[in-house]
Amino acid sequence: MAQRVAVIGAGPAGLTSIKACLDEGMVPTCFESSDDMGGLWKFKEVSEPNRASIYRSLTINISKEMMCYSDFPIPPDFPNYMHHSKILKYFRMYAEHFKLLRHIRFQTSVKSVKPRPDFSRTGQWEVVTENKDGREERHVFDAVICCSGHYTYPNLPLKDFPGIETFEGKYLHSWDYKGPEDMYGKRVVVIGIGNSGGDIAVETSRVAEQVYMSTRRGAWVIRQVSDNGLPVDMKYNTRFVHILFQLLPISFFNWLGEKKLNAMYDHTMYALKPKHRLFSQIPVINDDLPLKILSGSVVIKPNVKEIRGSTVEFDDGSIVVKVDTIVFATGYNYDFNYLPSSTMYKSGHRVGLYKHVFTPNLEHPTLAVVGFIHALGAIMPQAEMQARWVARVFKRSKKLPSNQAMIKAVEKDTKDIDKHYIVSKLTPLQVDFVSYMDDIAGEIGVRPSLPWLFFTDYPLFKRVLWGPVTAYQYRLMGPGKWEGARQAIFTQFDRMYQPLKTRKTVEQEPSLAGRLMKLSLTMMAGGAVVYYVHVRNPTTIPALLSSLRPQTV
Amino acid sequence: MAQRVAVIGAGPAGLTSIKACLDEGMVPTCFESSDDMGGLWKFKEVSEPNRASIYRSLTINISKEMMCYSDFPIPPDFPNYMHHSKILKYFRMYAEHFKLLRHIRFQTSVKSVKPRPDFSRTGQWEVVTENKDGREERHVFDAVICCSGHYTYPNLPLKDFPGIETFEGKYLHSWDYKGPEDMYGKRVVVIGIGNSGGDIAVETSRVAEQVYMSTRRGAWVIRQVSDNGLPVDMKYNTRFVHILFQLLPISFFNWLGEKKLNAMYDHTMYALKPKHRLFSQIPVINDDLPLKILSGSVVIKPNVKEIRGSTVEFDDGSIVVKVDTIVFATGYNYDFNYLPSSTMYKSGHRVGLYKHVFTPNLEHPTLAVVGFIHALGAIMPQAEMQARWVARVFKRSKKLPSNQAMIKAVEKDTKDIDKHYIVSKLTPLQVDFVSYMDDIAGEIGVRPSLPWLFFTDYPLFKRVLWGPVTAYQYRLMGPGKWEGARQAIFTQFDRMYQPLKTRKTVEQEPSLAGRLMKLSLTMMAGGAVVYYVHVRNPTTIPALLSSLRPQTV
Repeated sequence: MAQRVAVIGAGPAGLTSIKACLDEGMVPTCFESSDDMGGLWKFKEVSEPNRASIYRSLTINISKEMMCYSDFPIPPDFPNYMHHSKILKYFRMYAEHFKLLRHIRFQTSVKSVKPRPDFSRTGQWEVVTENKDGREERHVFDAVICCSGHYTYPNLPLKDFPGIETFEGKYLHSWDYKGPEDMYGKRVVVIGIGNSGGDIAVETSRVAEQVYMSTRRGAWVIRQVSDNGLPVDMKYNTRFVHILFQLLPISFFNWLGEKKLNAMYDHTMYALKPKHRLFSQIPVINDDLPLKILSGSVVIKPNVKEIRGSTVEFDDGSIVVKVDTIVFATGYNYDFNYLPSSTMYKSGHRVGLYKHVFTPNLEHPTLAVVGFIHALGAIMPQAEMQARWVARVFKRSKKLPSNQAMIKAVEKDTKDIDKHYIVSKLTPLQVDFVSYMDDIAGEIGVRPSLPWLFFTDYPLFKRVLWGPVTAYQYRLMGPGKWEGARQAIFTQFDRMYQPLKTRKTVEQEPSLAGRLMKLSLTMMAGGAVVYYVHVRNPTTIPALLSSLRPQTV
Repeated sequence: MAQRVAVIGAGPAGLTSIKACLDEGMVPTCFESSDDMGGLWKFKEVSEPNRASIYRSLTINISKEMMCYSDFPIPPDFPNYMHHSKILKYFRMYAEHFKLLRHIRFQTSVKSVKPRPDFSRTGQWEVVTENKDGREERHVFDAVICCSGHYTYPNLPLKDFPGIETFEGKYLHSWDYKGPEDMYGKRVVVIGIGNSGGDIAVETSRVAEQVYMSTRRGAWVIRQVSDNGLPVDMKYNTRFVHILFQLLPISFFNWLGEKKLNAMYDHTMYALKPKHRLFSQIPVINDDLPLKILSGSVVIKPNVKEIRGSTVEFDDGSIVVKVDTIVFATGYNYDFNYLPSSTMYKSGHRVGLYKHVFTPNLEHPTLAVVGFIHALGAIMPQAEMQARWVARVFKRSKKLPSNQAMIKAVEKDTKDIDKHYIVSKLTPLQVDFVSYMDDIAGEIGVRPSLPWLFFTDYPLFKRVLWGPVTAYQYRLMGPGKWEGARQAIFTQFDRMYQPLKTRKTVEQEPSLAGRLMKLSLTMMAGGAVVYYVHVRNPTTIPALLSSLRPQTV
């Protein structure tokens, strides 16, 4: 008889988990506490406790081809960086297309998930839910997938801000921020330079009298609009670049990347430069911040030292007076309050999950966490990859290592993360997008084989090697293979270009004059060299010429 | 006895005109219809008829060192791109420092300016003013400077938009736009891709459901944040670049500039590409637009063909339905309604002014227009330069050519503008910033002499040649020489950098690994060359080496 799987939460991770279970012939039941799908991406005018929350203007900073699920490309006419309303629309299309809705029980929150008394034999779980009338229900499931996300519990480290209790203005967490409406003419201090901090600082600066952005570490800030206007992830998140990263030392990429970023705007001059190197931390993505800094509407400040009344003092002794509002963009804590602590393995400050998915300390691998991950890439394809793996493990088509082996791996992850990233207790989830996708894909057996492609399908090989690592690549072969994957890869740039085709532009006749200029400049340079060499040694030129003559034996 | 000069308007041009008159020992009286100075830059919550109007978030797109008056640098701590509130603050400091206020009569509007009956003998004018109680006054002045600006009368070409009368939504001119507050969830069409159109489209797109930007011609769009984060005008508006423009054909700069802009974001892909070349039109300045286009919140559309109810159809036949608001960012008409038409000379669609300042058809040069100019540069320094010239002409220290000669020159200007620029009747004022500044400076005798500087003050020469053409350069020599000018030029980049010094950044130890990488790459390249040459012809290498050996006779 088919396995019954509980999926907790109908956000980006929950939806794809339902689908993964269905694909493997299991019977998923998804419990969603709110009245709609989308999780984080479901905008609400007022934030609701124990739910993720976003602001009105939020637009995702991952381009559509890089964020979509592997077997369901985003419609060609959708923009490359989608507003939350469009993302929700995409989720609805996904849910409808794969008939997921019927498996979701809305307005039903999960109170507790406990191993059943006979767990050691059955590996089953007892799940207690509560519907909107407060009526409790008990269910038995063969397995459970937790998709409750990690943007639910605001991290508000007030104790790190001496004098906050004396603050005369209003303070809030970015979780509570909806828009700049209350900021007109205000003096605002935004604390934290993550993506939320950056967005909020830029947005409020349009109406505030003055915005200060306080950062302990500084940050490397990148643009979404990359070379020639391509989405930055489609341009640089390629398999070729990924391979280079394996071959060359990271210090080289730090040097190269920082050089490129400073050429856009000198991070030292813009007071952004962090102590850490570019690739020691996921960079901040913000195209508008540089001009805001240059026009002084956002002023970068160091860490806050003390707050007195309406005055904020920073570590360098500088003060800002008459502060009306402080926004804490200080990230989130995570919690799985519905799980008994015994089920969760802690590794340092991290939840110890084998490959960020499985609790390594259970007799049966029937509890998994999906979407609990952070990389320079979207959650959707990563959660989908995890879900595909989880479904196969639940179905026993795939075995996990021994608990000891898994725990060893978890501890190694913890060390590696500490080694490679500037980690705060808020970023215990950091992975490299492609490495992680490839790793889990390997578990499932859907990792694209470059040699195989080289010999069987060269045009596709080229696109997989040089092109962006879109999730379609993981539907080319192995279980869950999708016939549309190849086509999707061949058309990914068309879908990127499509929404921009809104006005015909006339192609100029190639500028002849320009070309002539180019040519003449080259000739001038050439001439200079010849002249130089000639002066140095007249005999060289014949020598050079002869050196160009094909040899005769 | 000192000359009495009427100055009409206390905006950027009026203020500096008052000062110029005082500097030449004349007695200015400035009539300002509103209750404050600043003209355009005085923000009002509600636009007032016959007055220029700006929106709440307006920030100037010329950097502070390039916009300030030549003998009054903007304080070091002021930001590089100033919000209108800061600009007004600067004007107040300027007025106070040079004691201009006492010469301004606020809430006094000029009804008419007429040549007196004895004009042919005296060149005097009768000026009729009206104060806020409606009381009229007659004054006699020896000369008049019109500083009433050219952003006063919105150009609303409704007849070019068939069906506008059937439009069910609300339409307004950018002159009426104050902020995006009424645009929440609306579907907006912005017509015109000038700087206002761009700003309004970007700003409303943050709250609107969708913004469409209709442009007949398209545009080249540049960023204020230029290479390494320098203000674009400080980076490129240099005397050296200006000289290159004199030496090399414009087609070369078109080719080079368009190449650079397309490398930032392909103007064809972004549906922005215009028919005209880069330097045939003053480019649009907008750092935020590219991402708005890529994220689809601003959609570029061609010209509007027809409006039906709430539907807008474009020239390509595409339609947009349910349009709530149309914003006409269609520029301004100019008018000098207080002057008798007889005094104004028309040249084609232009007001025919000798060097954009003097009416060429009067018996006496006692009527001038200041600040009636449009270049890729701020009004302030240009208006100041004009005012300095005007004051000296009024004082007869400087003679104008004959009327015939001036009219000839005006007609030539008209032809040149038609030749060099894509001109609509709204841009009859276009000049090249440096050429124009130098030209008028030549009239006054304050144009900096590079050879003279080369021999007398080489460090200054270097900064004048390679550095941005800041107005201080026109206070180095000649009448109105300012002792502080040299120092101001030496410290202009300090003042640019100063407001950014808000957070100390630690300098990284120079990345050794990075350098090694660089080195090894160079060696690899070198190696490849040597190998290549060597294979082609083994004898070449000794030859090459010998060519490097110093010659012995």
